[in-house]
Amino acid sequence: MLRWLTAGESHGPELVAILEGLPAGVPVLAEDIQADLQRRRLGYGRGARMKFEQDELSISGGVRHGKTLGGPIALRVGNSEWPKWVDVMNPAPVDPAVLQSGRGAALTRPRPGHADLVGMQKYDFDESRPILERASARETAARVALGAVARSFLSELGISLVSHTIAIGPVSVPEGKPLPRAQDVATLDADELRCFDKETSALMYAEVDQAHKDGDTIGGVVEVLAYGLPPGLGSHVHWDRRLDSQLAAALMGIQAIKGVEVGDGFETTRRRGSVAHDELFASEEGILRETDRAGGIEGGMSTGTVLRVRAGMKPIATVPHSLRTIDTSTGEAAPAHHQRSDVCAVPAAGVVAEAMVALTLANAVLEKFGGDNISETKRNLEGYLANIPSSVHTVVAK
Amino acid sequence: MLRWLTAGESHGPELVAILEGLPAGVPVLAEDIQADLQRRRLGYGRGARMKFEQDELSISGGVRHGKTLGGPIALRVGNSEWPKWVDVMNPAPVDPAVLQSGRGAALTRPRPGHADLVGMQKYDFDESRPILERASARETAARVALGAVARSFLSELGISLVSHTIAIGPVSVPEGKPLPRAQDVATLDADELRCFDKETSALMYAEVDQAHKDGDTIGGVVEVLAYGLPPGLGSHVHWDRRLDSQLAAALMGIQAIKGVEVGDGFETTRRRGSVAHDELFASEEGILRETDRAGGIEGGMSTGTVLRVRAGMKPIATVPHSLRTIDTSTGEAAPAHHQRSDVCAVPAAGVVAEAMVALTLANAVLEKFGGDNISETKRNLEGYLANIPSSVHTVVAK
Amino acid sequence: MLRWLTAGESHGPELVAILEGLPAGVPVLAEDIQADLQRRRLGYGRGARMKFEQDELSISGGVRHGKTLGGPIALRVGNSEWPKWVDVMNPAPVDPAVLQSGRGAALTRPRPGHADLVGMQKYDFDESRPILERASARETAARVALGAVARSFLSELGISLVSHTIAIGPVSVPEGKPLPRAQDVATLDADELRCFDKETSALMYAEVDQAHKDGDTIGGVVEVLAYGLPPGLGSHVHWDRRLDSQLAAALMGIQAIKGVEVGDGFETTRRRGSVAHDELFASEEGILRETDRAGGIEGGMSTGTVLRVRAGMKPIATVPHSLRTIDTSTGEAAPAHHQRSDVCAVPAAGVVAEAMVALTLANAVLEKFGGDNISETKRNLEGYLANIPSSVHTVVAK
Amino acid sequence: MLRWLTAGESHGPELVAILEGLPAGVPVLAEDIQADLQRRRLGYGRGARMKFEQDELSISGGVRHGKTLGGPIALRVGNSEWPKWVDVMNPAPVDPAVLQSGRGAALTRPRPGHADLVGMQKYDFDESRPILERASARETAARVALGAVARSFLSELGISLVSHTIAIGPVSVPEGKPLPRAQDVATLDADELRCFDKETSALMYAEVDQAHKDGDTIGGVVEVLAYGLPPGLGSHVHWDRRLDSQLAAALMGIQAIKGVEVGDGFETTRRRGSVAHDELFASEEGILRETDRAGGIEGGMSTGTVLRVRAGMKPIATVPHSLRTIDTSTGEAAPAHHQRSDVCAVPAAGVVAEAMVALTLANAVLEKFGGDNISETKRNLEGYLANIPSSVHTVVAK
Repeated sequence: MLRWLTAGESHGPELVAILEGLPAGVPVLAEDIQADLQRRRLGYGRGARMKFEQDELSISGGVRHGKTLGGPIALRVGNSEWPKWVDVMNPAPVDPAVLQSGRGAALTRPRPGHADLVGMQKYDFDESRPILERASARETAARVALGAVARSFLSELGISLVSHTIAIGPVSVPEGKPLPRAQDVATLDADELRCFDKETSALMYAEVDQAHKDGDTIGGVVEVLAYGLPPGLGSHVHWDRRLDSQLAAALMGIQAIKGVEVGDGFETTRRRGSVAHDELFASEEGILRETDRAGGIEGGMSTGTVLRVRAGMKPIATVPHSLRTIDTSTGEAAPAHHQRSDVCAVPAAGVVAEAMVALTLANAVLEKFGGDNISETKRNLEGYLANIPSSVHTVVAK
Repeated sequence: MLRWLTAGESHGPELVAILEGLPAGVPVLAEDIQADLQRRRLGYGRGARMKFEQDELSISGGVRHGKTLGGPIALRVGNSEWPKWVDVMNPAPVDPAVLQSGRGAALTRPRPGHADLVGMQKYDFDESRPILERASARETAARVALGAVARSFLSELGISLVSHTIAIGPVSVPEGKPLPRAQDVATLDADELRCFDKETSALMYAEVDQAHKDGDTIGGVVEVLAYGLPPGLGSHVHWDRRLDSQLAAALMGIQAIKGVEVGDGFETTRRRGSVAHDELFASEEGILRETDRAGGIEGGMSTGTVLRVRAGMKPIATVPHSLRTIDTSTGEAAPAHHQRSDVCAVPAAGVVAEAMVALTLANAVLEKFGGDNISETKRNLEGYLANIPSSVHTVVAK
Repeated sequence: MLRWLTAGESHGPELVAILEGLPAGVPVLAEDIQADLQRRRLGYGRGARMKFEQDELSISGGVRHGKTLGGPIALRVGNSEWPKWVDVMNPAPVDPAVLQSGRGAALTRPRPGHADLVGMQKYDFDESRPILERASARETAARVALGAVARSFLSELGISLVSHTIAIGPVSVPEGKPLPRAQDVATLDADELRCFDKETSALMYAEVDQAHKDGDTIGGVVEVLAYGLPPGLGSHVHWDRRLDSQLAAALMGIQAIKGVEVGDGFETTRRRGSVAHDELFASEEGILRETDRAGGIEGGMSTGTVLRVRAGMKPIATVPHSLRTIDTSTGEAAPAHHQRSDVCAVPAAGVVAEAMVALTLANAVLEKFGGDNISETKRNLEGYLANIPSSVHTVVAK
Repeated sequence: MLRWLTAGESHGPELVAILEGLPAGVPVLAEDIQADLQRRRLGYGRGARMKFEQDELSISGGVRHGKTLGGPIALRVGNSEWPKWVDVMNPAPVDPAVLQSGRGAALTRPRPGHADLVGMQKYDFDESRPILERASARETAARVALGAVARSFLSELGISLVSHTIAIGPVSVPEGKPLPRAQDVATLDADELRCFDKETSALMYAEVDQAHKDGDTIGGVVEVLAYGLPPGLGSHVHWDRRLDSQLAAALMGIQAIKGVEVGDGFETTRRRGSVAHDELFASEEGILRETDRAGGIEGGMSTGTVLRVRAGMKPIATVPHSLRTIDTSTGEAAPAHHQRSDVCAVPAAGVVAEAMVALTLANAVLEKFGGDNISETKRNLEGYLANIPSSVHTVVAK
C-alpha cells in the first residue's frame, strides 16, 4: 500500500512530500521530477507568478544513486520567492509591527469560490491568510513531484500515462478524434493548452484571449489516459477497492475540480444499454473489445483496454473583476482579495490529474502484485499475465 | 472515524454489514431500516426479481432497546429466495452433480459492461458465477441498511438528506426547477421514478416505456441534497480530507456509476469565472450566499449551504436483446448471459447514493466533532457553531 | 491488505465478523472453524458458562463450496443462550417493566479491572450493562473464527502456527525446554492447560486448584510460534510496518493482556550484547542461525527462523471473593458485580493469541506478495524465495 | 485522526517528517523541538557519533508565527555530517569509482541482531548499506521531533509526559519507589541515565562501565508516564481501538524494543486476582483508585489515573567484540561490520518512547474530542469532563 503526505504553504519556504511503500530499485532522478514540475507551470493564460517563481526540487531521502531504496521517499520543492515572505510566513514569532501592512496585512475579504471563509470558520482564524496559504493550488507541485516518482514505477512495468485538454470553457474536442498516446506527449506539451486536436486548440486559444480581454477567467476539462494496464487492478468486492472510486477521489481531490467521469461518463447516461457497453469478440490474440465506452474499467477493475478518466475544472475563482464579498473586519460589502492573475489553469490541471492517476494506479498495482523490489513486482505481474488461461485472455492496450 | 464492511452474495443466504465508530445513543429501529430497504426495491422499470425477493432485516449487535451502544453495529439482510439457491451457493462443498445444470451450471458467457470477464481473470475462475454474485447490485441493500443508521445519526444533529432523479436517459429536469426538501420526501417516494418535477416525470415514464418496448435499457442521473450541514466538514489541508473527494469516491463506488458532479459540476466548466461562484453578501442573520453553484462545498469543506452532488448511472448492462460476447468454454461468439430483467434502476440508485452520502457525512461529522455518545457529539457541534464569531457567521440552510 | 471487523454482545443473539481482502481459493469449512471455537472454550479452570453455552457457527458470505470467493467473508457465531436474554438485550425497545429485576436490572456496581466504570463515563451510560456486553471476552470467539480462516490461508503457503501455555501464575516452563511443533498440537490440546511440558503442567494444575480453593483467580503467559514463515514479512522502513509492532498491537489488543514479548523479550534486556543476538553461520543449506533469541524477527522483519511471541494475561478481574467498588446509584461502597466464574482463562487466551497472530501474519503475507487467488499468492511467494541469491540464502524453519 | 510519516537515511542529508491532522493554534517553536532532539543524544554510554553529529532542526510547513495552522506540519532534521557522505549516499548517480573503498565500499558482512541480512533478502540488495541506512536508530530523531509537537498539543490540554529509565541490564529500580512527575523532568534529564532513583542510578553507571570494559553492550527498560489524561481515551469496542493495543504498537515499533508492558505487566500475571486490580473507593472528590496496577488503562481505555507503560530494549547489536557472521561476497565466516560504538542507548530510548506515547495519545485525544483549533478541542474535552455525572466522577491524576 502506498501512503503519502504533502506539507507546506504557498508562500512558505518549500513544499515537502513523503511517499511510503514504493519498492526498491525504481529509477528516480531529480531532473525528471523537475521536468514534470516545469510542465505544471506552463500553459496559455497563466499569470506572472508562474514566470518568476521557481520550483527548486531536491531529494532528501529514499533514493540513492538514482534508484529507490525501498524506504520512504522525501521530496522538497523550494520556493524561490521565499525571501520576500520570510516575515509574513515565518514559522517563528515575528515582531507584530511587520504584519501591519503590505504582504503581512490581515486578509479580511474572503474570496468567493475559495476555502477562505469556511476555512476561517472551521479553523478559527480572523483572517484568511492561514487558510489560503495551504488551500492554494501551489500545493499541487508536491503532488506532481510524487506523481513523477509513481510514473517512473509504472513505466518500469510497461504502463504509460498521457493527459490532455479536451475542453476550455465551452470549446471542446469533437467526439471521435484520435486519442494521444505515449509517443505524442512531446507534441502535446508543445501546445500551450495541451490539446491534441489542432483545430480545437486554435479555438481554445481564442476563448482564453477573449476571457482575458473581458477581465474574466475560464475553466475546462482534462482527460488522463493510461496504456499498458494489466486487467484486474481494483476490485468489485468492496466499494472502496473499486478503481473507479479511487480515481474519482484522486481527481475530485484536486483544487477546483467539480466533476469526474470514467470513460464516456455522463454521455453514457443518455445512451441506451444496447450501445453503451463494450461487446466482446474473439480474435487471434485473445478476446477483444472494439470500443472503449467504459473507459477501461468494468466492475471497478481495469480491463486492460485504455483507461480513460476526466476531470472538470471550474473557472479560476480569483476573477480579475473582483467578485463581491464582505470585509469581515467591518461587516461591510467589499470586493474580494485578488491574489493571483491567471486566466486559465486547465493545462496545469491536466499535469496534476496525471500525477494523481499515477499515484492511484501505482497503489493499485502494489495491492495486487506486492513486491519490495521492482524486479519482484514485475515478476509477479508477468507471472499473473502468463497464467491467465487462453480462454479468457484479453489484449492489453499499449 | 467510521469504518464499515459489507459481505454476502446476491443469491447467498444473506448480506451482512458491520459499522464501527458510531456513538452510543443513536436511535436505530429495524423497521426504519426495513423501510429504506423497501425504497431501494421500488422504481418504475424494475423487473420481477424486485417483486418476489424480500429483504429480511435483522440487527445482530450494537443496538439495544432501540439505541446504539457505541460498539460495532451488525445488520443482516436475509434473502427470501435463498432456499432455491442452497446448492448453487452453499458455503459447504456439494455433490458436483447438482451443479451440472439449471441454476448451478457454469456461466461461461461473460456479460459486457459487467465485472464478469475481468473478474474471472483477476480471481482465476473459469466461470463468472463467483464474480457476479458479489458484483451484483444486490450488495447495495447492505449499504442502504447502513445508510439508514448513518441517516438517523445525522438526523439527531439536524442534518437531513434528500435524493431525487434528475435525468432518465436523455430526459432531464430543466434548470431552475425548485429543489426538493426534507418535507418533500414522501411526495418523491410516491413517484415511481422519484422525480420532483411532475412534467419531467411524465416524460421519463414515457422514456422507460419506450426502452422497454425496444428491448433495451436506460440510465440516468440522481442528485443527493443535504440540509442542515454545519460549515467546515472536510478540509482543504490534504487532498483525501476534502469532502468533495470523499463524496466522489462514495458515489463512484456504486455499481454502474460513471460520472460524479459537485454543485453545477461540468456545467460550471463551461461558465466564465464571473458567473461561476457564489458571491457573499451581508444580511441581518450573517453572511449570505444567494446562489449555490458550488453545491455547498468550497475548498473541500461544507459551507453550510445546501450540499448538492450528482451521480450518473449507465444503462443496465444486462440488455434484454443480449450483447455479444464469447463463450469462454468454447472460444466461440455467443450472446451474453441474461441474469436480470430491469429496464431502469435509476430510482434505486438515488436511494443507494443517499446512503453513501449519509455514511460519508456521518464520518466527516465524527472527524470534526468526535463524541462517544450522541449527546456529546451534539454538544461539540453546538459549541462550535456558537463560537463562530459574528464577523464570519453564515446561515446554515435547513 | 486485510481488514476485519467484529460485532455483537456477550449475551446478544450472535457475534458477527467480516474479513475483507483474502484471496479466492482458500479452503474454508464451517467444521474447521467450529473446531477452533471449541478449543477456545476449553481449559482447566473454566466456569459453568463454557459448558452450557454453545457457539453455533455459520458462514453467510464469501465462501462457496468450501473455498473463498475473493470477496468479504462473513461469519456468525450464534449464542445458544440467547433465548434467556431476549428482553435484556433486545435490539428493539422493550417494556421497561421487564428490566426492573433479574437479568434486566441495572448494573451499578462497576467491577475493578474491567471496562465498566470508564466505559460508563466515556459512553454516558448510568449502568455498566451496555459496556460489559461488548467488553466481554466472548467477543474473542469472533476473532478465533476469523483466525481459523487466516490459518487456512497460511497453511496453503506452508506456514503453521502453534500456541501453548508457558506460565500459570508463578509457575512457568523452565528455560531450555523444547518448543512444540505443528505435529504436537493434538497433544497440546489434550492437556487442559495446553502446556507442552508435562511436569510443569502438573504444577500448573495444582496452582489452579489452589486459586479455586482460595476463591481467587489466576493469570499466566501464552506463547505463539509460527513455522515456515518466509524471511522478509514486515519492514524496517517505517515503524508501523514492523512485524513486531503489528504483533504487539494484535496481542495487546486481546482482553486482559498486559504484556507482550518478542523472542526472549524482557529476558534479553538483562543480557549482555555478546549473548543476546543470533549469530550467523555458513552451512550447506545456506546461512544458519543456531539460536532464536530474537524470536524470528530482526529489524521488524521475519527472518525465517521460528517466530515466537508471548502475551501475559492478568488474572480474571471478576474475583469470586468480590473486589470492592462503589454502587453508582447510591455512592456507597459495595462488592463488585459477579458476572462470571472462571478461575483461569489462560488456555483460551492462547487460542485467541494464535488467531490474532494468524490474522497479522496473513496480512503481512498479502502486503508482500499480493495475489487475488491463493495460487497467485503462492506463485509470488515461491518466486521470491527462488530468487533470493544463494549468497544470502537462509533456511526457513519448518 | 493523526497521520505521520518519516523519511531519510542515517547518513543522508536530513530526516524529514510530516504530521497531518493536528488542530490549529498549537504552539510550536523550533527551539523546543531542538531541545528534545538534544535529549535524545544524551546518555551515559553513548559513542563518539552522538558528540560530533548535530541535529539541525527546521520547520518547513504547517507552522506560522509560532503556532500551527491546521495543515500538515513538516520538520527537517539536518545531519551535520552529510558533507562526508555526499558520494556514498547521493540521491543522484555517482562515479562507481568513488564507491570502491572507504565509506563507499559494499557492506557484505551483515550484522546479527540487525535488519541487514533479512533486509538484503527482502529488498534484493547485495550489500547491507541500503538497509542499515534506514533501519538505523537515527530515524528516531524524526519521531522525537514529531513527538515534541504532539507533546505541546497535549500540554495545552493539561496532559504531561515523563519518561525514565527503570532498568539497565540486570540492575533495576526496586518496587515501591516513587514515580517521577512533570516537575521532576529537569532532575531526570540531569542524570545521564535518566534514572529517578539515585541509588539505583549509581549501580546502573557501574553496570555500564563494566560492560564498556568488557567490550560489550547493554540494554534495559524505560517507562513512560502520562499525567492529566481524561478517562475514556481508546475504546473497548474493537481491538484496534484499545489504547493499550495502540501503545504496544507504538513502543514495539521502536528499534531494539523486544517487550512492552502496561502497568505492572508481566508481574501482574504472577499475582492472584484479589491483589491484581485497582479497587474503587468513594471520596469527597469522586470515585478513587488507591492503586495503579493497571497502569491507568482498563478495558482498553484510559482511566484518568497515571498512565504507565514500559518498553524493554535489547542490548545494542553492534557489539565492540564483533559477533560472528558470514561475508556474503565470499560465503566465508567473518566478523560483523562495526558501524557504531555505543555501549548503552537506553536513556535515548526513553526519550523516543515518550515521543511515541505522545503521538499515540494525541491521536486518541483527537479521536474522542475532534476539533480543528486547539480551543475547540479544549472546549470539547472540558465539556465532556463537566458532563460526567457525579455518580461516576473520578479524579484525574495530575
